[in-house]
Amino acid sequence: MKLKYAIVGTGALGGFYGGLMTRAGLDVHFLLHSDFEHVRDHGLRVDSKNGDFYLPTVNAYAKPEDMPKCDCVVVCLKSTQNHLLPGILTPILHSESIALVLQNGLHVEQSALDLLGKGRVAGGCCFLCSNKVGPGHIRHLDYGKIVFGPYRGIDESEPGPPEELMKQIHQDLCNSQIECHLTDDLPATRWRKLMWNIPFNGLSVILNASTDAIMADPNSRDLAKRISEEVRQTAGHCGSQIDPSYVDWVIDHTDDMVPYDSSMRLDFLHGRPMEVDVIYGNALRAAERNGFDAPIQKTMYQQLKFLAAHRPTKPAN
Amino acid sequence: MKLKYAIVGTGALGGFYGGLMTRAGLDVHFLLHSDFEHVRDHGLRVDSKNGDFYLPTVNAYAKPEDMPKCDCVVVCLKSTQNHLLPGILTPILHSESIALVLQNGLHVEQSALDLLGKGRVAGGCCFLCSNKVGPGHIRHLDYGKIVFGPYRGIDESEPGPPEELMKQIHQDLCNSQIECHLTDDLPATRWRKLMWNIPFNGLSVILNASTDAIMADPNSRDLAKRISEEVRQTAGHCGSQIDPSYVDWVIDHTDDMVPYDSSMRLDFLHGRPMEVDVIYGNALRAAERNGFDAPIQKTMYQQLKFLAAHRPTKPAN
Repeated sequence: MKLKYAIVGTGALGGFYGGLMTRAGLDVHFLLHSDFEHVRDHGLRVDSKNGDFYLPTVNAYAKPEDMPKCDCVVVCLKSTQNHLLPGILTPILHSESIALVLQNGLHVEQSALDLLGKGRVAGGCCFLCSNKVGPGHIRHLDYGKIVFGPYRGIDESEPGPPEELMKQIHQDLCNSQIECHLTDDLPATRWRKLMWNIPFNGLSVILNASTDAIMADPNSRDLAKRISEEVRQTAGHCGSQIDPSYVDWVIDHTDDMVPYDSSMRLDFLHGRPMEVDVIYGNALRAAERNGFDAPIQKTMYQQLKFLAAHRPTKPAN
Repeated sequence: MKLKYAIVGTGALGGFYGGLMTRAGLDVHFLLHSDFEHVRDHGLRVDSKNGDFYLPTVNAYAKPEDMPKCDCVVVCLKSTQNHLLPGILTPILHSESIALVLQNGLHVEQSALDLLGKGRVAGGCCFLCSNKVGPGHIRHLDYGKIVFGPYRGIDESEPGPPEELMKQIHQDLCNSQIECHLTDDLPATRWRKLMWNIPFNGLSVILNASTDAIMADPNSRDLAKRISEEVRQTAGHCGSQIDPSYVDWVIDHTDDMVPYDSSMRLDFLHGRPMEVDVIYGNALRAAERNGFDAPIQKTMYQQLKFLAAHRPTKPAN
């Protein structure tokens, strides 16, 4: 059976992966907002370090009501828009659709789970540096791997989607030249990603600094490492044991990254909502449920909430 | 015996207290830097909420070599200038001079102790809102109390200055209409002051916010309270037991303050050195000596060190 895919949110992430999937011949349907007319008329352009490509025609939609029912809805919106999901997803779901939620943070799948029900939600972490540089125009800078797996709810007690379906999605993504790994341990994958996101997203906003500036200063570098270690300990208390050496890996790996503004810093600088609640708030709630005090993460959360409420007004994007 | 006082650093603090002492008829000698000529020719002006006054002539000096030997040297410089103390103090000391160090932070008396030796150093905390608004011109906004006492070294093992001398200084300050308290427990006094300075100095720089903005936002308000509590616990591990209710007092008291930019924020905004090391660094070293982890203070220290190294260049003052 050929799966029908919906890409919800055709930005730096959805445009890149959806573009690769379309190029590979998958049945992909894009929901667009501000770029709809441009993409309907001119298609999608992806400049990638792995090779540029241009798709003159894609299945573009301005409203979910116009879309076909899809087997796999890939959620690529920012999590700050998850309150819109019921209106967006309901028209494109059939009784066995599953959602694949590719968002930063922890338990970002919960909105989809509320909507689709048990056994119908997967989540994934993307290790991707890409930007949208114009309407329907994506620039892929580095990386691109997706690690995804079944989402089993906050207490890990619920069933995930059917294994056969997960395998087919994995195969479809691999066939699209997307580096892709199917995991049975989504929580550990999320926590490992948070070991980078929590130090570097927050510090880049609080210190108004790019990743390479944070790495070059001995104080902020050590602070990033201490934060990553606190996240690792939080993960351990929440049931995901991660080896201490992974902290060093995160730091060393960041040294090797191209100078990069975190998505949270870009959101901050452009006056867009920041993903403070799903990244920091949800990690702190998980720590609290498991009786672990996370003083540095709580400090960063409170600093970021203050900065989000008091930043200079910028034009909304 | 009438004591001869030197005021080293005639700014918002030294100008205010030295002015009051001069007005009361004490023998006071001011060391000045940029304001020397103005103060020599036009004296000192103090606009105070307790009553304005003007001193047309004061004993003003540009160089310590020109000053008489003094019995009590009141150190009112910012602690970031303490590396200058040997050159400044040596010419004005006699064999029984004592130093009274009125600086923010912890163990700020150490430079004076190294220079004058055991039994010759006192320290004090000033609860004062004042600014220098022009050459030789001080504006006193609020408060003004000094709490001072013998400094006994980092391990509290050394003798303080002679009790009689301390009492005479206390009496002289009281006679100058300075609200003044002589304590035998300088460490607890310093820690109580740090319970305000550590949260509010640092957050005002990190969040780029005035004290009233920090108090008005529920996240930064709770963060300030958590930081103050961590300082209280640090104090306890360092031998100064402070009642938990003092945290509430600090917060309530800050609610009642006039909207006020902390000295550290003013230093930051004007491109001047900030007292990060004596306030945060020395508190952290004390915590470490006593086996206490102070994660939030360490986070703030590292954030402030980064911001100090990366702030936009401003003209030096």
